[in-house]
Amino acid sequence: MASSFVPELARSPMSLPLPTPPVTKFKIGLCQLSVTADKERNIANAKNAIENAASNGAQLVLLPEFWNYPYSSDSFPICAEEIDANGDLSPSTAMLSEVSNRLKITIVGGSIPERCGNRLYNTCCVFGSDGKLIAKHRKLHLFDVDIPGENTFMESETVSAGETPTVVDTDVGRIGIGICHDIRFPELAMIYAARGAHLLCYPGAFNMTTGALLWELVQRACAADNQLYVATCSPARDTEAVYTAWGHSTLSGPFGEVLATTGHEEDIVIGEIDYSILEQRRRSLPLAKQRRGDLYRLVDIQRKNSQ
Amino acid sequence: MASSFVPELARSPMSLPLPTPPVTKFKIGLCQLSVTADKERNIANAKNAIENAASNGAQLVLLPEFWNYPYSSDSFPICAEEIDANGDLSPSTAMLSEVSNRLKITIVGGSIPERCGNRLYNTCCVFGSDGKLIAKHRKLHLFDVDIPGENTFMESETVSAGETPTVVDTDVGRIGIGICHDIRFPELAMIYAARGAHLLCYPGAFNMTTGALLWELVQRACAADNQLYVATCSPARDTEAVYTAWGHSTLSGPFGEVLATTGHEEDIVIGEIDYSILEQRRRSLPLAKQRRGDLYRLVDIQRKNSQ
Repeated sequence: MASSFVPELARSPMSLPLPTPPVTKFKIGLCQLSVTADKERNIANAKNAIENAASNGAQLVLLPEFWNYPYSSDSFPICAEEIDANGDLSPSTAMLSEVSNRLKITIVGGSIPERCGNRLYNTCCVFGSDGKLIAKHRKLHLFDVDIPGENTFMESETVSAGETPTVVDTDVGRIGIGICHDIRFPELAMIYAARGAHLLCYPGAFNMTTGALLWELVQRACAADNQLYVATCSPARDTEAVYTAWGHSTLSGPFGEVLATTGHEEDIVIGEIDYSILEQRRRSLPLAKQRRGDLYRLVDIQRKNSQ
Repeated sequence: MASSFVPELARSPMSLPLPTPPVTKFKIGLCQLSVTADKERNIANAKNAIENAASNGAQLVLLPEFWNYPYSSDSFPICAEEIDANGDLSPSTAMLSEVSNRLKITIVGGSIPERCGNRLYNTCCVFGSDGKLIAKHRKLHLFDVDIPGENTFMESETVSAGETPTVVDTDVGRIGIGICHDIRFPELAMIYAARGAHLLCYPGAFNMTTGALLWELVQRACAADNQLYVATCSPARDTEAVYTAWGHSTLSGPFGEVLATTGHEEDIVIGEIDYSILEQRRRSLPLAKQRRGDLYRLVDIQRKNSQ
């Protein structure tokens, strides 16, 4: 490619090379959980599902957005946990820590409502295979929607947005984290890709309108545009709930192909990830070398400021 | 939305407001043409198709990539036209000018091979309803692909890339232009949206591999991500050709929904565009106000430099 197009300048700072992952091939388990108003039951149910996924070979388990309590603005303040305090003040993350350590797996723990001081966040905790909390992603893009006659939801009335993108090195590669509406902002996935992510994980609970229209579309496009793996995990559909989730938790590959998926019932999806495919796809179709850094440039502001 | 996230700074320069279009509702015709080695026949065939689309109410007609000669690296130098010279040196654009003026329609003239000095370009000419050439887009991202055993194509060995993105004001709204592989670079569509485009037109000839995997996916995602209309137009499929196009010319709406499409045979797709839907969708789901200008920023370099 003609270097006068300065493809490397299409990202600022310039893209990091894809790091060599600790493992090339492994299984991911997407636990599409049913969520009830009984929080203890939800935690026990999630624990069982994680154990089940691990017994089926999953070295990485992804949980849904809001897997420990049904999502609604009213429930948020009631069921929020103090994650930094851990232990009794955060039974959900205490369980994730215990089970990841015991089973020696990585867990991207979907999201739970977090209380921190007088703020509430929609937060994803990532646990390493030693049971340690290695990343905490607070949802960056809150879901405010008003489709007359169909759907109105104002997450920002209750929840505060996070302050930083999250990329974390794990035993199963470099993972970028987003929660639900975060996936509608391609810029986030693009800066994760530039930070060398192999895989993006999006716990998400699209509703029945945006689910039908956009859920599969945006995750497949995200994988194809960035030539990496994308995993999503939704709660199972509950048509009696205040907020009805779409389901259809899915693993997509770097050509935008669906590698594993399910319907809307409670289920555990096991997908196979092979990072050697990433190099292969990027060699075949070197999008990063074809970008026009002379025409557009995406700036990762925090990474740039930290240089 | 909390202004501390400075959503307006997620684009640099800041996004222009959507301009009031000269027309709110109109029909677009996508002419999925069969292309043969007989150039005169191809020009006559395209002319007939445009007339047919206009007689079915189309105020805007979109042609395929390489509608006047079958796409191959060998054919490119032979059939290239000198567009700037017009007349006898560019029979294809002479026809487009005549027919757009006679029928009082806007034509986004797919793409043809262009010769300019000792360079060759893959070029889209846009004609206003007075028959004047109002924009010329030279493909910015050349298609170099090497999928062993499936597909190898090196457009950059023959063709030079364009130097500038193209947004043009027409009688049917502000239109951003891309050619085929240009659609794989979401940055281009994002800067077009920030320049106030209502509609993006991508003449394109995805092949049988990328067509099956990506054609519908990327255009629907482009429409949904940028909350605007996206129209694509492919040549009809010819399995005897050196390069076999996918077909499936499509109009997508701002929720990523397919509004009109077809199979892979020669066909004219008539789609209805209603720009009032754009405002409605953007009010319902105000992505532009939810962006995180504190975390990422997409720079439109030529627009920034011209300020």
